[in-house]
Amino acid sequence: MAKTSLSTGSFLSSPKLDVVIDTGNPFLNLTVDGFLKIGSVAVAKVAVEETYHCLSKGSISQKNFEHTLKKMCKEGVYWGSVAGLYVGMEYGMERIRGTRDWKNAMLGGALTGALVSAASSSNRDKIVTDAIAGGAIATGALFLNYLT
Amino acid sequence: MAKTSLSTGSFLSSPKLDVVIDTGNPFLNLTVDGFLKIGSVAVAKVAVEETYHCLSKGSISQKNFEHTLKKMCKEGVYWGSVAGLYVGMEYGMERIRGTRDWKNAMLGGALTGALVSAASSSNRDKIVTDAIAGGAIATGALFLNYLT
Repeated sequence: MAKTSLSTGSFLSSPKLDVVIDTGNPFLNLTVDGFLKIGSVAVAKVAVEETYHCLSKGSISQKNFEHTLKKMCKEGVYWGSVAGLYVGMEYGMERIRGTRDWKNAMLGGALTGALVSAASSSNRDKIVTDAIAGGAIATGALFLNYLT
Repeated sequence: MAKTSLSTGSFLSSPKLDVVIDTGNPFLNLTVDGFLKIGSVAVAKVAVEETYHCLSKGSISQKNFEHTLKKMCKEGVYWGSVAGLYVGMEYGMERIRGTRDWKNAMLGGALTGALVSAASSSNRDKIVTDAIAGGAIATGALFLNYLT
């Protein structure tokens, strides 16, 4: 918890999504990093989405604005939590397995999928299906990014 | 189309998802690569999913097997097409913009989301929302993979 530096680029000129918080623990660092980065992405997504809705409706009211703020917070925290969990899991896999490859992403995605699913429902079949989907999505995302 | 080499690791021992096809054109290469890699991930996902269903039901019938094969083909082609489209878009962005950063992923994801959505529905609002979600997901996946 020694040094804490926080810097976010302005969204209006050239967005430079760059958030750094040093907690002194690599595991926690990664999780916080994942939470903040993906949380920012989700907040930006909601902002763009709601702006489009306002433009297509042609009206901006106080109520809409409050709704947008609430949705930003909710989606930001949700995406951030899932991302933090996934990054933490992947880092844990790396420490346990000693290597870095796509199997970490798969297992991390599967565990994250299972945990997120277990937190919102108690159907055993759904948890397993979500775990499988999570693993597949994490593996797919990894492959896509290392393709080019 | 000079040389064509295809090699896939066995899924039973240590899976080594490694598919290479050289078409002689970098744009096409990437798209085919994305299609095959992400298609394989989707096929593996369906295989695991259906195996779980068989195990939890305790029965394997001819009909189930046919259903699984069909689902594998369908999901494999769907995931593969989306991935190929996205990789192609991202590569196109890189060529047009001249640089590689997260904005390529965002624009590529947004275009892919819009195209996939436009192919399956004609609701203008849904296409825009899907484009925004696609861009956000692609950006998020990129950040997550370059975090560690």
